[in-house]
Amino acid sequence: MAGTPPTRSLLFFFSLVCFGTLSVILLLKTKNKRKKKRIVTPKHLFFPDKSGHNASTLLNLISSLPSHSLDICVYCLNGKDFLEAILSVHKRGVPVRVITDNEESYVQIATLRKGGVQVRTNMSSSYLMHHKFAIIDRSLLITGSLNWTRQGLNGNYENVIITDDVGYLGGFLKQFEELWESFDPLASK
Amino acid sequence: MAGTPPTRSLLFFFSLVCFGTLSVILLLKTKNKRKKKRIVTPKHLFFPDKSGHNASTLLNLISSLPSHSLDICVYCLNGKDFLEAILSVHKRGVPVRVITDNEESYVQIATLRKGGVQVRTNMSSSYLMHHKFAIIDRSLLITGSLNWTRQGLNGNYENVIITDDVGYLGGFLKQFEELWESFDPLASK
Repeated sequence: MAGTPPTRSLLFFFSLVCFGTLSVILLLKTKNKRKKKRIVTPKHLFFPDKSGHNASTLLNLISSLPSHSLDICVYCLNGKDFLEAILSVHKRGVPVRVITDNEESYVQIATLRKGGVQVRTNMSSSYLMHHKFAIIDRSLLITGSLNWTRQGLNGNYENVIITDDVGYLGGFLKQFEELWESFDPLASK
Repeated sequence: MAGTPPTRSLLFFFSLVCFGTLSVILLLKTKNKRKKKRIVTPKHLFFPDKSGHNASTLLNLISSLPSHSLDICVYCLNGKDFLEAILSVHKRGVPVRVITDNEESYVQIATLRKGGVQVRTNMSSSYLMHHKFAIIDRSLLITGSLNWTRQGLNGNYENVIITDDVGYLGGFLKQFEELWESFDPLASK
């Protein structure tokens, strides 16, 4: 009976070490996860940018950040890099919706649909669906003058704004849903 | 001598009443001035807007708000309403600078220059000056997908963001000055 207290102490000490080790492992894992998810989100990007840094920042946001949803509403969408970014998000299993004008992106719309991405287009021949915005995970808005084209990314003078301000997000989320419904080809008119 | 203190009291009371009345008048005048200058600045505007409210809000911001400066950097600028708004600001004596692409607005550029407005244009034939932003009094940014055209205002699906966030303003002010310098036709190359 004299050995019981030291045994208890040893057990207690052993449990403490195990618990501590597990906690450290979990903490490190969470930290790594956070690090992996952390992507630089500047407030704005201007083009042209000879270094290519702004283009890669934008493409990285579009391809790597979405974990729940990616909603795109862009007039002209035919840049190869943008298409690859969209398809990579879709392949990761993240729901992607694309709204675009059907004036300039026929082949690219077909490519996206063939890849399984939902695409809806402006069916009016009189007026353009001229927006150039995207919403990541319903919490980050990318908007500006930039069409998602090679010339937009590598030639023109363009700007892109990036914001998580709910004051902007609310309106753009509503706008996206309204256009998504109004461009539904199956909806009864 | 016995009457002196009451006379002094009366004079003091009279001065107090005069001072009070003057203060109230000045306060009311300042309040009215503030009210007159107060213009609704929403966070965003979407088009089309059948009521015409968004169009008039935007035009009112451009024409009525600037008191120190109006810097415009818009790809296509040929809407009659926009031109009238710009010229009205210039006629009020507020310095106005316009940067635009020279691809689609020849006649309108001539109209603005004839009216005395400083206009500089993108001289590259390969790439577009595709921005669509303006900065009022170096403190309010208007930016988005909207070209300053009749179709932009009354037909297309478009958005405009309005912000006084210095985090955005800094970059756009810098961008404007850089383009203004680089499009100077008199600068030695």
